[in-house]
Amino acid sequence: MIRHVVLFTWTEDATEEQKATVATELRKLPGIIPEIRSYTADADAGINQGNHEFGVVADFDNVDDYLVYRDHPQHQKVIAEHIRPIIASRAALQLTL
Amino acid sequence: MIRHVVLFTWTEDATEEQKATVATELRKLPGIIPEIRSYTADADAGINQGNHEFGVVADFDNVDDYLVYRDHPQHQKVIAEHIRPIIASRAALQLTL
Repeated sequence: MIRHVVLFTWTEDATEEQKATVATELRKLPGIIPEIRSYTADADAGINQGNHEFGVVADFDNVDDYLVYRDHPQHQKVIAEHIRPIIASRAALQLTL
Repeated sequence: MIRHVVLFTWTEDATEEQKATVATELRKLPGIIPEIRSYTADADAGINQGNHEFGVVADFDNVDDYLVYRDHPQHQKVIAEHIRPIIASRAALQLTL
């Protein structure tokens, strides 16, 4: 199984509406991309200082299924229209489980 | 459930032995800290360019159990002795599942 993890911080001028839209749009993807086995897209829980602000953890059966998600036009559309305009920093990793 | 995620990049002069020791030492923690429900500590799978190099994904029943892990002396010892000396960058997040 492949677990994809990506963490973001947002620009200072990103609005609450823009941040909320990222979550709303990403959460539509499991209904569109059947290769997604498990999907969480949410803001940081607020326990620690200095964290990134938003994260996605997504599980796939194998690398090919992850690549279907990564390159899916609807995912790329969310990135281009809603994520990229407000990214301050991004940290990503894929783990083999 | 609380899912703790932390991603690292290592300094350029970090050795393969130092990097491997981080994984070895972290993977001992589930045997020492019973509050850990699920634990993965591993290097990036190498699918994408530009990723962070190493990540931990750890699940806990609740915030208090996560804090036991975060503040556990054995965990803090691994951070102080093996992780902090080779950190170039760190990105973290906790998700409520």
